[in-house]
Amino acid sequence: MIKVVLISHTPDPERTIAAAARVSSSPVGAVELLEKLTPERVAQLVERLIASGHMSVFEHANFTFALEGISRVTSHQLVRHRLASYTQQSQRYVSLKDFNYITPASISGKAELAGRYHETVRAAHQLYLEMQDAGIPAEDARYVLPNAAETRLVMTMNARELIHACSLRLCLRAQWEIVELFEHIKAEVEKVAPRLAAELKPKCYRLGYCDEMESCGIFPTRAELADKRGGNT
Amino acid sequence: MIKVVLISHTPDPERTIAAAARVSSSPVGAVELLEKLTPERVAQLVERLIASGHMSVFEHANFTFALEGISRVTSHQLVRHRLASYTQQSQRYVSLKDFNYITPASISGKAELAGRYHETVRAAHQLYLEMQDAGIPAEDARYVLPNAAETRLVMTMNARELIHACSLRLCLRAQWEIVELFEHIKAEVEKVAPRLAAELKPKCYRLGYCDEMESCGIFPTRAELADKRGGNT
Amino acid sequence: MIKVVLISHTPDPERTIAAAARVSSSPVGAVELLEKLTPERVAQLVERLIASGHMSVFEHANFTFALEGISRVTSHQLVRHRLASYTQQSQRYVSLKDFNYITPASISGKAELAGRYHETVRAAHQLYLEMQDAGIPAEDARYVLPNAAETRLVMTMNARELIHACSLRLCLRAQWEIVELFEHIKAEVEKVAPRLAAELKPKCYRLGYCDEMESCGIFPTRAELADKRGGNT
Amino acid sequence: MIKVVLISHTPDPERTIAAAARVSSSPVGAVELLEKLTPERVAQLVERLIASGHMSVFEHANFTFALEGISRVTSHQLVRHRLASYTQQSQRYVSLKDFNYITPASISGKAELAGRYHETVRAAHQLYLEMQDAGIPAEDARYVLPNAAETRLVMTMNARELIHACSLRLCLRAQWEIVELFEHIKAEVEKVAPRLAAELKPKCYRLGYCDEMESCGIFPTRAELADKRGGNT
Repeated sequence: MIKVVLISHTPDPERTIAAAARVSSSPVGAVELLEKLTPERVAQLVERLIASGHMSVFEHANFTFALEGISRVTSHQLVRHRLASYTQQSQRYVSLKDFNYITPASISGKAELAGRYHETVRAAHQLYLEMQDAGIPAEDARYVLPNAAETRLVMTMNARELIHACSLRLCLRAQWEIVELFEHIKAEVEKVAPRLAAELKPKCYRLGYCDEMESCGIFPTRAELADKRGGNT
Repeated sequence: MIKVVLISHTPDPERTIAAAARVSSSPVGAVELLEKLTPERVAQLVERLIASGHMSVFEHANFTFALEGISRVTSHQLVRHRLASYTQQSQRYVSLKDFNYITPASISGKAELAGRYHETVRAAHQLYLEMQDAGIPAEDARYVLPNAAETRLVMTMNARELIHACSLRLCLRAQWEIVELFEHIKAEVEKVAPRLAAELKPKCYRLGYCDEMESCGIFPTRAELADKRGGNT
Repeated sequence: MIKVVLISHTPDPERTIAAAARVSSSPVGAVELLEKLTPERVAQLVERLIASGHMSVFEHANFTFALEGISRVTSHQLVRHRLASYTQQSQRYVSLKDFNYITPASISGKAELAGRYHETVRAAHQLYLEMQDAGIPAEDARYVLPNAAETRLVMTMNARELIHACSLRLCLRAQWEIVELFEHIKAEVEKVAPRLAAELKPKCYRLGYCDEMESCGIFPTRAELADKRGGNT
Repeated sequence: MIKVVLISHTPDPERTIAAAARVSSSPVGAVELLEKLTPERVAQLVERLIASGHMSVFEHANFTFALEGISRVTSHQLVRHRLASYTQQSQRYVSLKDFNYITPASISGKAELAGRYHETVRAAHQLYLEMQDAGIPAEDARYVLPNAAETRLVMTMNARELIHACSLRLCLRAQWEIVELFEHIKAEVEKVAPRLAAELKPKCYRLGYCDEMESCGIFPTRAELADKRGGNT
């Protein structure tokens, strides 16, 4: 089961973002701005920055998460977001006696297939343990472990990249497991930066249309939009 | 079996690097420098840049490789090098009828274990196919596939990052499969940029000592080095 | 006067992008794809990738430019695009005997002010030379040089970042000098990758609206768009 | 005068780094590790990570600084460190009525030159103001302002990049102003992460030799080192 804990973050992230933004266009320094901005002004600034797409200031707020209970399928997708920092539990150095793994709902919903799935995955883990007993190093024995194997990471991502990653990964075209992971991430951000969390949403909300081949229904595709307007886009 | 092909690269990579470097300290422009530098001067400049650690100019030479026959173990390690571009064959969209996988030498050397390894891996692939026949989407069926499953990628990496990645991945402390991968990469670079390729080597060559816990023998560790000198480092 | 020369680039950039993209969803390898894709198929793939926002494959095509005749105002803005590589003529090491500088049109259009501008800038350069004659190192003497001073760079940027940088820098809200610089860059790309060059345009073309405070007129702002539709966006 | 204030940072940065590092090689999760690590264990882990060059975990600790009183010479050098986030006071939008600027010590030490320097810089600022009165926009008027003009920024940099930047910028071959800037930065980090701050030092300390053309004397160059050993390096 996915577990996401925000273990550390830039204190008062929205204020930090707002003060940094004001430095750009103000003769006053950041230290003074940090102190003097009212909560209302912080809220107003954050909203205006998002509306106008001035995203670089969002990099000044960082969030560090402990991520657990995700498959190696999902960790492989996750680390493709290069503008973030990851430390992952190593299958080279940690020998997994207690083996946990993910089962997709599409499989657990079919009793007979699910039975064979559990059996196959467990047989792989059994062989993994026996190979190590026979002197095979963990780093080689793990070749037999399935993609389903659970992993854990520490991830640090700034607010700009969180907005970008969520724009892709909360899209219903993304795979269910990474969608679920980013829903947990969003819920954690909500506790400390609600205005920012409100911006963690699929890309269609910003575009005003769906740029995938087929829409999930939230927004029409660009072609459908043009049809509706009876016009050229 | 690992297969690496350099499918594209900055034409005349060492000349491009040398000309860019000269722009920094010369009143002459890059276009003129590119034409006028003799091969001897290019060689001399590239060597001096490396010796003095002025690495940023190496970013102007890019290399695009087709990588095949590596396991998902290795692709997961590879994409952790964030200063490069990757396009990987998707297990979401490509259903793997012809299933290839990697077998570590430590396993293939033990006949009985190897037999069970092949059997377990093939059983996983068999279930993968059957699940799809039963309507499970490829993106979910793949959870049962092993880490050993072959994958392929296109990777673009600049010369600076190639030097950095090789400094880590040609170290004998890295896992054998990724060491082998970078040996192939180095061999490909050698064909078009021999001076640069000569710099693709483990980090100890630059440091003059081994910074791992235990040395493989090429260089002493820093502690051993201090002992040998009878002194404090 | 701005001068931009494309001194090097990934050979056949659009074909490289298309082949990389196909690797993701095809059982065939990149080497075969590179050979077999017809020009029509390449064109079709590049257009589809852009329409669907699958931009990461555009990173496999790199472009190296010699940039000359821009002010330090503009080079300071330019290097803020962090996903690119720069080598800049150093004011620490190159003493500028032949001093060139940029004059904004808004100034050259007012004869009297322009006269004082040229005088002030030249006086600064004169002092710069005299200070060096008196033993001040170039790196310190340059403190007196104006923002207007010409500089030159070598820049390597991949196609994805070119699209992003142009989306911001071809916007008429950007400063005239950097707009002009990116128009030159676009013209150079056009010669070797026309389909890609067609995508080098202000962000409003992709968004379908202007996200600046005030529109230049190409597209309405989001608020104006909502008004026009008589509705909620 | 340079002023650096650490306005925000990852709370308990060394503990965060140590806990993240342990996740890689431990079956225990980050939340538990964060709680249970003793201060002694944190210290030991941080030192071991540095000694072995396992730097990626240092990315989990971020530091946000307000930087004031530096010249545009130095801000232009600073933003070349691409693995960090910057928001800079804009000369496009902020009209500098109160004009401050930096005077290098090599110039202020020579009374007559210094007099002319101040005069020239102030004349430029005077024209800058007059041009604006005559309707020239601030973004164009600033072309006449000198490199010496003061600027301010907010910068967020993680501990790994701080170590890297200091390895270059605390080297006495760097320009005096950026050396001074990073000494201030180091002093700020010292208050909240003393063990990390101890690692903010020139690259020669890690290499054990100087890789510049000529050494400042702290460490011999590699060639000198080889001579001393009477041997081959």
